[in-house]
Amino acid sequence: MIYFEDMDVGARHEFGSKTVSREEIVDFATQYDPQPFHLDDAAAAMTPFGRLAASGWHTGAMTMRIVVDAWSDKGFMGVGSPGLDELRWLKPVYPGDTIRVSSEVVAKRESRSRPNLGSVWSDVLVHNQDDVLVMKYTSIVMMLRRPA
Amino acid sequence: MIYFEDMDVGARHEFGSKTVSREEIVDFATQYDPQPFHLDDAAAAMTPFGRLAASGWHTGAMTMRIVVDAWSDKGFMGVGSPGLDELRWLKPVYPGDTIRVSSEVVAKRESRSRPNLGSVWSDVLVHNQDDVLVMKYTSIVMMLRRPA
Repeated sequence: MIYFEDMDVGARHEFGSKTVSREEIVDFATQYDPQPFHLDDAAAAMTPFGRLAASGWHTGAMTMRIVVDAWSDKGFMGVGSPGLDELRWLKPVYPGDTIRVSSEVVAKRESRSRPNLGSVWSDVLVHNQDDVLVMKYTSIVMMLRRPA
Repeated sequence: MIYFEDMDVGARHEFGSKTVSREEIVDFATQYDPQPFHLDDAAAAMTPFGRLAASGWHTGAMTMRIVVDAWSDKGFMGVGSPGLDELRWLKPVYPGDTIRVSSEVVAKRESRSRPNLGSVWSDVLVHNQDDVLVMKYTSIVMMLRRPA
């Protein structure tokens, strides 16, 4: 089990990767973000994307899945998130791209109101197959404290 | 058409609403955020959620869809987003909840490097059917400037 006490400021984690297909990009965009540049190459050619690219919310969701899969294997005692800061979609994610997720713990604090919980801040970095940073944000996660 | 020049600081917009089902919550979580409290009432009972609640990324994605549908109808000339700030998941979204999205334009700036683009900052607010604020963030959207 990984409790609040086990998260050291400065620690880095590698979570894994995922290759995204055109079909997945179009499926997500159709359901949640049907802007033309997420659905169609010709429409995207008229925007800074240049060609069909994934919704930023899709990249965020895929990133979450990669993190959850990695942490679940290790018994990560997270109990939800109050939010995130400074999310940046720095470069497009295109069909066939492979995204890779890593993080660094940047701060932590015991909860004042709930003695069994603490909060952990981490910089989450998402790179593509060319080691280009495509997305980053600072996550905030509530974790269980280690039972006495 | 709604161009950069048409977005006035202080303007408020109402985008629409959506009722989310248990099946949709579980489907999204299964694919993108399979933490136990997004999949199962019993597991959620041991967390601050209390019972099965939507992934925050799902709430974000549903919010995006509501905004895109509303803006598409009006010819919104958005060409992507460099990111968002201070996203907060303030209260859980439960099966059967209806979320409603509104926004207020808080700042705007012409692009220095691309004379045909400008950036618009908006506070995006998501309330549930009881008028409780469940999510908020500050969006940043690039828009086309009105052709001369």
